[in-house]
Amino acid sequence: MTNNMMNSTAVYPGTFDPMTLGHFDLISRAAKLYDHLIVAVASTSIKNGALFSCEERVEMIRQEIAAAKLTNVSVEVLDSLLVNFCKKHGSKIVIRGVRVYSDFEYEFQMALTNRKLNSEIETLFMMPSENLSYVSASMVRELIRYNGDYTSFVTPIVADRLTKIQEKS
Amino acid sequence: MTNNMMNSTAVYPGTFDPMTLGHFDLISRAAKLYDHLIVAVASTSIKNGALFSCEERVEMIRQEIAAAKLTNVSVEVLDSLLVNFCKKHGSKIVIRGVRVYSDFEYEFQMALTNRKLNSEIETLFMMPSENLSYVSASMVRELIRYNGDYTSFVTPIVADRLTKIQEKS
Amino acid sequence: MTNNMMNSTAVYPGTFDPMTLGHFDLISRAAKLYDHLIVAVASTSIKNGALFSCEERVEMIRQEIAAAKLTNVSVEVLDSLLVNFCKKHGSKIVIRGVRVYSDFEYEFQMALTNRKLNSEIETLFMMPSENLSYVSASMVRELIRYNGDYTSFVTPIVADRLTKIQEKS
Amino acid sequence: MTNNMMNSTAVYPGTFDPMTLGHFDLISRAAKLYDHLIVAVASTSIKNGALFSCEERVEMIRQEIAAAKLTNVSVEVLDSLLVNFCKKHGSKIVIRGVRVYSDFEYEFQMALTNRKLNSEIETLFMMPSENLSYVSASMVRELIRYNGDYTSFVTPIVADRLTKIQEKS
Amino acid sequence: MTNNMMNSTAVYPGTFDPMTLGHFDLISRAAKLYDHLIVAVASTSIKNGALFSCEERVEMIRQEIAAAKLTNVSVEVLDSLLVNFCKKHGSKIVIRGVRVYSDFEYEFQMALTNRKLNSEIETLFMMPSENLSYVSASMVRELIRYNGDYTSFVTPIVADRLTKIQEKS
Amino acid sequence: MTNNMMNSTAVYPGTFDPMTLGHFDLISRAAKLYDHLIVAVASTSIKNGALFSCEERVEMIRQEIAAAKLTNVSVEVLDSLLVNFCKKHGSKIVIRGVRVYSDFEYEFQMALTNRKLNSEIETLFMMPSENLSYVSASMVRELIRYNGDYTSFVTPIVADRLTKIQEKS
Repeated sequence: MTNNMMNSTAVYPGTFDPMTLGHFDLISRAAKLYDHLIVAVASTSIKNGALFSCEERVEMIRQEIAAAKLTNVSVEVLDSLLVNFCKKHGSKIVIRGVRVYSDFEYEFQMALTNRKLNSEIETLFMMPSENLSYVSASMVRELIRYNGDYTSFVTPIVADRLTKIQEKS
Repeated sequence: MTNNMMNSTAVYPGTFDPMTLGHFDLISRAAKLYDHLIVAVASTSIKNGALFSCEERVEMIRQEIAAAKLTNVSVEVLDSLLVNFCKKHGSKIVIRGVRVYSDFEYEFQMALTNRKLNSEIETLFMMPSENLSYVSASMVRELIRYNGDYTSFVTPIVADRLTKIQEKS
Repeated sequence: MTNNMMNSTAVYPGTFDPMTLGHFDLISRAAKLYDHLIVAVASTSIKNGALFSCEERVEMIRQEIAAAKLTNVSVEVLDSLLVNFCKKHGSKIVIRGVRVYSDFEYEFQMALTNRKLNSEIETLFMMPSENLSYVSASMVRELIRYNGDYTSFVTPIVADRLTKIQEKS
Repeated sequence: MTNNMMNSTAVYPGTFDPMTLGHFDLISRAAKLYDHLIVAVASTSIKNGALFSCEERVEMIRQEIAAAKLTNVSVEVLDSLLVNFCKKHGSKIVIRGVRVYSDFEYEFQMALTNRKLNSEIETLFMMPSENLSYVSASMVRELIRYNGDYTSFVTPIVADRLTKIQEKS
Repeated sequence: MTNNMMNSTAVYPGTFDPMTLGHFDLISRAAKLYDHLIVAVASTSIKNGALFSCEERVEMIRQEIAAAKLTNVSVEVLDSLLVNFCKKHGSKIVIRGVRVYSDFEYEFQMALTNRKLNSEIETLFMMPSENLSYVSASMVRELIRYNGDYTSFVTPIVADRLTKIQEKS
Repeated sequence: MTNNMMNSTAVYPGTFDPMTLGHFDLISRAAKLYDHLIVAVASTSIKNGALFSCEERVEMIRQEIAAAKLTNVSVEVLDSLLVNFCKKHGSKIVIRGVRVYSDFEYEFQMALTNRKLNSEIETLFMMPSENLSYVSASMVRELIRYNGDYTSFVTPIVADRLTKIQEKS
């Protein structure tokens, strides 16, 4: 049964600063398509402008995944080149969400670059639910800056953390 | 082991009039990602402006697939709504190639419409090889009209058939 | 109080073949912004490929507007150049919905052409609800062709008529 | 006559650093469509990279508006979330200029986010005059950096101020 | 001095049905950049939906060029594949105007296809004057259909002919 | 023979940090179209975030051009406004490469701004080879950051220098 196993692991890389409902929708959809889904969180640090540390982001996604009982999803830090990460975890599939048209430019460049670096890895593009398509992490960060209400754009666990951040500052 | 089986069949729908090297590149790539790939050929007829009849297109793709020994790929006529076709063949995954940006508009509308019609079916977008990204079936048809050399844009079997068409007219 | 009156009439032109939920969403939104909204239905005929005659389309929109009690909306046939229609009805505002990016190209050309023809008329672009943004009349017509379920893309009155059309054919 | 009054105030938000001829063209056009237009100047400071302080930008726009006798236009600092600003000023309409295609991505996200935050506020998109469509504030700032001639891209009052800035540095 | 001669002829292909002010602006600009410019008029016939016969279009462009004293521009019928036409006329440069973004998709495909057919021929893209960027031949044809005023979109010679067409019908 | 000389010099401006294979492909193509091609290297400094100093970039391009025996290409620092640089060097043609769609927005604004500053200078857009279209300098810089293999994206001389940079850090 090796054939069935060959593509059973997919990697969904991103910054997730913070994870939006759009990100979580994509995780849920991809989890149904593969035996195992690895959410790979890019190791951008607060020093370099991130809202949450990489560890905090990993933790939040893990909590949300546990709450949703997505048992075939794991969360890891993406601390190397994506193609090397995939190889290390035995995955040949990269999942990327595409919300808007300009996304594609960077996505296409990345995907073709990755294919050049390792021709065995394919990038597959998925769409989030249409009523989440405009939700972006940067828009959430902007709402936080102006004390706007972000609760309809993030999961409850993330909303909770964001409230704590706002109270501190 | 039901889990491993659940997403093992993917459907790649299109008109393939004629199949280009870009189409064939995508078939080869998708064949590596799934246990079974069904190429679903839309039943547009010569009456409605197609260059080849649906049967001819199915036959050409089958020959090319046999020549390439892609044993897990089959070719079928797409004679119903795509979501019904998928259900009938036990597939939850639709594969679509995206070459250029304006493709996305129609592709997004189709994918969201299909999701509305059957929420269990996901559309995944793949990229053909970058040096085939500009090859389109309509460009090949235009080359035929002006007696241009189409041999670097289609597979040998398709090129053969196109020559016969040109000789007739 | 002439100032308050000056821009109180807006025109929303289109083919509406058939009216989708996206069209109706836009009518409802625009009705809140102006004293009077005129839905201007382009006089494409069934001979020229329309699904419904212009009269049928006008009638369906009128019924839906009556059902929704949008008392400040009227429906007219657009049988002349848009700028002339606007002048005749004392309107200086054209409303257009934009769903997708490629829409803009034609929309921009039209709007700049209309401005050249009559510099007093402004075109304003609005967005339909995000969960209707992918619904297009052509997608609905395609669903009809393949016996797909169009009921979640059109209003009940339009759905009713579409059923009658399908039964006939 | 409450109906006539309901949408008589529109808000045109932006950074205006500096106001270009394209911005001013849009102010002039929007002023004809509404009883009252509020130009809302985002409070980005020189510390955060702005060329002019928020106060200077407000002052320049006010002078230009006075010179053009646009008596129904006022200029305010935008120091809160846009939807809150609109509510405070009794406006349900946000006006945004769209010059180029990539503008739309951010504009759509913003507009849909604002609609989520307050469903009563509509964003309307307008086009500047076609011969001003390529003029952007960032291009003007780049011209200043390289001592280029910016006089055909900004209003005389802004040009005057820019000359003073260049002389200082 | 063979080097100076090597790229002195450029080809500007199109349908020109009818020639717009945008087309003519591009002819004038390109004429300044090359020793010789050949306007290559695609041989679409009235049978196939063209407004003017190929001969009429050639004639109108010739008259306009004579009136403007563009002595280094000639007009020819494009009756073969573009790369063959270029070879026959000793040209290695194809000029194409780009007005809007969606233009590029077809233009890119065409240019890459032509490069594949003859690697010595380069396609160069130019922009028409910004206040003509929205003028398209199809918009002019639409204006004619609805008796709109097309005089500010075409040259006087074309306007004259269009009037005669309208009078006939 | 003044006519033949009039457009014999073209300028290809850019940052080239570092020069990619896509850049070099464009230099080679443009060198065939003009008597003289000047590669104009923008004087961004390492202080302002550049990977290589302007001098290093100029030197690398010169070496590569010498190796390829492109005798009609010279390399200069672009230390003034582009239109002034062109005037100083007697050139009326600016060459720009276009890889992806979003490029055009900035390119169009730049080209129209330059035309306004000096109406005699035309910008011509060229396409790099299709299998280099996704290679960008920023992608190369990202690969360096993550210790990825950049050798298939840059020329050997640039690859050499990049290795030295990586060894240092």
